[in-house]
Amino acid sequence: MSDVTPEDILTAQARIAENVHRTPLLSSRTLDEALGHRIIFKAENLQKTGAFKLRGATNALLKLREDGALGDRVCAFSSGNHAQAVAYAARALGVKATLFIPKQASSLKIAATRACGAEVVLTETRQAAESAVTDLIAQGVAFIHPYDNPHVIVGQGTACLEALQDGADPDAVFAPCGGGGLMSGTYLATRCLRPTTKVFAAEPLLANDAAQSLRTGEIVRLSDTPMTIADGVRTLAISERTFSILKRLDGLFEIPEAEIICWTQWLTHLLKTVAEPTSALGMAAAAKWLSAQTTPKTVLVILSGGNIAPDTHCEIWKTDYLSSFPKF
Amino acid sequence: MSDVTPEDILTAQARIAENVHRTPLLSSRTLDEALGHRIIFKAENLQKTGAFKLRGATNALLKLREDGALGDRVCAFSSGNHAQAVAYAARALGVKATLFIPKQASSLKIAATRACGAEVVLTETRQAAESAVTDLIAQGVAFIHPYDNPHVIVGQGTACLEALQDGADPDAVFAPCGGGGLMSGTYLATRCLRPTTKVFAAEPLLANDAAQSLRTGEIVRLSDTPMTIADGVRTLAISERTFSILKRLDGLFEIPEAEIICWTQWLTHLLKTVAEPTSALGMAAAAKWLSAQTTPKTVLVILSGGNIAPDTHCEIWKTDYLSSFPKF
Repeated sequence: MSDVTPEDILTAQARIAENVHRTPLLSSRTLDEALGHRIIFKAENLQKTGAFKLRGATNALLKLREDGALGDRVCAFSSGNHAQAVAYAARALGVKATLFIPKQASSLKIAATRACGAEVVLTETRQAAESAVTDLIAQGVAFIHPYDNPHVIVGQGTACLEALQDGADPDAVFAPCGGGGLMSGTYLATRCLRPTTKVFAAEPLLANDAAQSLRTGEIVRLSDTPMTIADGVRTLAISERTFSILKRLDGLFEIPEAEIICWTQWLTHLLKTVAEPTSALGMAAAAKWLSAQTTPKTVLVILSGGNIAPDTHCEIWKTDYLSSFPKF
Repeated sequence: MSDVTPEDILTAQARIAENVHRTPLLSSRTLDEALGHRIIFKAENLQKTGAFKLRGATNALLKLREDGALGDRVCAFSSGNHAQAVAYAARALGVKATLFIPKQASSLKIAATRACGAEVVLTETRQAAESAVTDLIAQGVAFIHPYDNPHVIVGQGTACLEALQDGADPDAVFAPCGGGGLMSGTYLATRCLRPTTKVFAAEPLLANDAAQSLRTGEIVRLSDTPMTIADGVRTLAISERTFSILKRLDGLFEIPEAEIICWTQWLTHLLKTVAEPTSALGMAAAAKWLSAQTTPKTVLVILSGGNIAPDTHCEIWKTDYLSSFPKF
């Protein structure tokens, strides 16, 4: 799409620099030795609000303010991390926020959004959350779509951009794909600094609307919230804007739930960092890609967030995947 | 005891510097604002082998080598983290290791010890592990006691020493107490650099042999492995050497299991770092001490390790303590 270019990521990076953490790169010698490759993680789980989402939300709000279009309230719908990000960014800029969140969302993410001083409206379904914003938009309230917004997309891309600037020199980049905002931004950031590096998406098999869309050539919309453990990517459909970028990816991996959980356990164990199941998608995809490589490769994996509710922790750990190294 | 002085910590630090990580200090603005105090964490969960224990084991082995007393094999008993540390340090120095571990120990710690190439012998009880080393000692194999060894004690103290050198300027320091090695080293390190800073121990109420010993004035020995969730401090008794140092502490807090679990959850959530329940003991004690302070204070909390087996993760998360901030 003509409304998002790789160079926009550099502009976004300068715009949000004072509002977000420059998160560290992590690695594990044990993991590298076990796989025979080098894995570099961009730790957006250590971002303010515990997820990369603050980048896109902050960039979108600051762009609205630059354009004189930021009123006294913003609104959004989200399964959690975007809600908290909009709430946090709005508070930082001194405006009010109303967030519509499906009640199936992580209790922790709902509580964290309220803790930022935002008004939270719980809805029965994801569809209800998406349609609830319509009334507020009609009243002139600025709406921050979680991914179908060019300023959100380039904001999310600043995570990958930083990683590439900070010394990651990957043959391939992996990120999770929900609505496609992070994935699109990651693609654009890689094209901006490393034109020949491959870029791959990872999606839960249980929520594979992007994979289906790429296979059929038309956006496939799920009928109801997919109950993958990766609650950061429980989106119903990608958008035309993100679809146009996702078509340019080098591939998309569909990850079964067991692999998501297994890699969540191993990332916890090896990195001693709290990475939510959505963060494990990229690692699961990277492991599949690396297993087919005949020479040692370096990959960059975007860890998207680290917000895990107690019941999700229980779900993650009820089966022991640490007793043997992952072989999928 | 005359065989351990604060200055020995500086010597140990120089001795082990190339073998251990200088781990970072962590903090949480949310936690500081909620408590009205400043909490600085020394992240020994990010140490090689996932625990501070590598410091003491490495110092003890290097001192033996300096003294020409390091043969071709070392042995130790441990409930887990010390075993892995001795195995790791032995491999780094090119000697063999035999570790006696009670079978109740964390499966993850047992597997990690084996992964370092060490011989692991599982015993029925903690007592059996302790007595099993006798035969090897009789054969001239060097034995590394997990805490009743002056070189282990000063090695463990280097964690606190680093924190104080790296800018932590605390009114009080908190660390967990099992056999008393980390606690003794922490006391000596604080006395070395900050003579007026208070030093407090934290022990599970379920495994309060040190508290009982301090109350009665004589070392109290538990009859069997205490089944606290804090598996890093399942020791049966302190030693005369550590007892003599623990008597000089400013206090010892006995922490109920629910508080250990609650703070484990909150440290996971706030710091996005994997801290095992033993690591939460110091925070639980700090929270109690801070609640009685009338002016803002700064405290240093030693996070001892980050090795958590899957079944322990389940135990930690089966009750939700994140829905409201800890009030004990």
